[in-house]
Amino acid sequence: MSISAPTYDDVVRASERIAGLAHRTPVMTSRTADERTGASLFFKAENFQRVGAFKFRGAYNALAALDDDQKARGAVAFSSGNHAQAVALAGQLLGVPTVIIMPKDAPAIKVAATRGYGGEVVFYDRYAEDRAAIGRRIAGERGLALIPPFDHPEIIAGQGTATKELIDDVGELDLLLVPLGGGGLLSGSVLAAKALSPRCRVIGVEPAAGDDGARSFREGRIVTIDVPTTLADGAQTTALGAITFSIIQELVDDVVTVPDAALVEAMRFFAERMKMVVEPTGCLAAAAAFSGVVPVKGQRVGVILSGGNVDLATFARLLMPA
Amino acid sequence: MSISAPTYDDVVRASERIAGLAHRTPVMTSRTADERTGASLFFKAENFQRVGAFKFRGAYNALAALDDDQKARGAVAFSSGNHAQAVALAGQLLGVPTVIIMPKDAPAIKVAATRGYGGEVVFYDRYAEDRAAIGRRIAGERGLALIPPFDHPEIIAGQGTATKELIDDVGELDLLLVPLGGGGLLSGSVLAAKALSPRCRVIGVEPAAGDDGARSFREGRIVTIDVPTTLADGAQTTALGAITFSIIQELVDDVVTVPDAALVEAMRFFAERMKMVVEPTGCLAAAAAFSGVVPVKGQRVGVILSGGNVDLATFARLLMPA
Repeated sequence: MSISAPTYDDVVRASERIAGLAHRTPVMTSRTADERTGASLFFKAENFQRVGAFKFRGAYNALAALDDDQKARGAVAFSSGNHAQAVALAGQLLGVPTVIIMPKDAPAIKVAATRGYGGEVVFYDRYAEDRAAIGRRIAGERGLALIPPFDHPEIIAGQGTATKELIDDVGELDLLLVPLGGGGLLSGSVLAAKALSPRCRVIGVEPAAGDDGARSFREGRIVTIDVPTTLADGAQTTALGAITFSIIQELVDDVVTVPDAALVEAMRFFAERMKMVVEPTGCLAAAAAFSGVVPVKGQRVGVILSGGNVDLATFARLLMPA
Repeated sequence: MSISAPTYDDVVRASERIAGLAHRTPVMTSRTADERTGASLFFKAENFQRVGAFKFRGAYNALAALDDDQKARGAVAFSSGNHAQAVALAGQLLGVPTVIIMPKDAPAIKVAATRGYGGEVVFYDRYAEDRAAIGRRIAGERGLALIPPFDHPEIIAGQGTATKELIDDVGELDLLLVPLGGGGLLSGSVLAAKALSPRCRVIGVEPAAGDDGARSFREGRIVTIDVPTTLADGAQTTALGAITFSIIQELVDDVVTVPDAALVEAMRFFAERMKMVVEPTGCLAAAAAFSGVVPVKGQRVGVILSGGNVDLATFARLLMPA
């Protein structure tokens, strides 16, 4: 494991930093889901987290961990998704100026939300410019801390707090299922799970179209793929990070994939039976349990629902009977 | 108040009976909702209750309160909605045989759900037969206890437990907003609110098309209307009951109405911002706060979200952008 990799102690520290600022989200259960699977399923509802996704945990922790001088200078993040808004909100709460690099054609509602949280938005042309390079340039010019979306020790530690809360609330687990994109959530989750429930197996779940994590796990090296076409827009990453890969490689028990159709089925189940809005990416772990891709019968299973940010028109379209 | 009217002591007893059987549903909050209204809103999420609505509280309490002899003989209920399923499930949990009288043309999914909970379904022709008469006949012939949907002391006391939990969890309130159909939820809620938070004003909220409660409240007598056309299918009652009216008349501070368009707007807000599925009837109280029908600025306001049972196709249609 890389020398900069976080440990469970970092998750505990993150947990103290975010207390009272991130929501301690509820653990939801469903007798119907338990009957259908023969398992006891504990759904950690990060769709109810601030900004609608677990991302707030890591973003807040990373900004809170900066030294005072760096806090005064500020931070920069690039993301078209939940991470950007999470960094902007965390900056607002901590009094840290933030710059968010977003594509020129980002949805107006996301730009407005980011600005609403006090983030300065810098646009780039995603067909002609490299957002990472822009991020590094702005960070250098203005002395800002670059806060990447997943491959960062404090981001990983922050994301791990959801699993810490889950196990603190419901006790030890036999199995933990976690959505996998860039691996921030999975690597933080496995740190917490193996510390608090040592016999708990931890499995990452990717969309079938974006199986770089599964391939990396099997091949023992970071496999890079093209941007995958999947409803799970939060898992459209093309490669794990150096830190997340090293933790996943060492501690995670398996990485599996589910097809998009299983995400839609899970999303419909959550809306119809559990009265929750869960975004497609947020359904990855649940879909693995519901579809039988991972056997769960007779087990106590934690299932991370990572977020609920799906625009209403898309959500409505996916709920419509086929 | 009628001699058979329940009191707060009955709510406390109901609370003990349902403990561990009904969900203690979470209280949800939203910074966005608070910013938009200038209030502190506490949403009691009965959409997460068993069978998807507060109805389980009253049904379980009413069956649990039967004497052993009556429990062995069983109970009968008529309802095309949440009450029927709630009685069937409560009967299953308590070992009380239940007969549910449903219209011949009830949706297959509701019939299956009721049977799934162990209820015996008796069909009637809603265009030619009177379900209340059938209920009384079956109750008489088979010695069953008739469990009406709202006008019953133990039903009212059971429904009041949601507000007891809400105030126990968040402390005293300035205002409590409650959906109003037949008045079981509102009368139970006001018993709990006035006991636990004496200065709390309590307001019932009806759909504009079905304003029998508002008219009854103002005229001081039970006004009966035709079956109203509204999205709020849980509030399509045509008249308050004798007991619910007497409690509402004595203790409730006001009854207001909201148009269906405000229900749709609230439903969209819950899906988009709070990641919850709330049925149109369940949005009544929230719509009164969001639309300004009831001034809430600067107040601590409890808002009962009464249920989440809306079929997916209808839900999807209502979420679609206009």
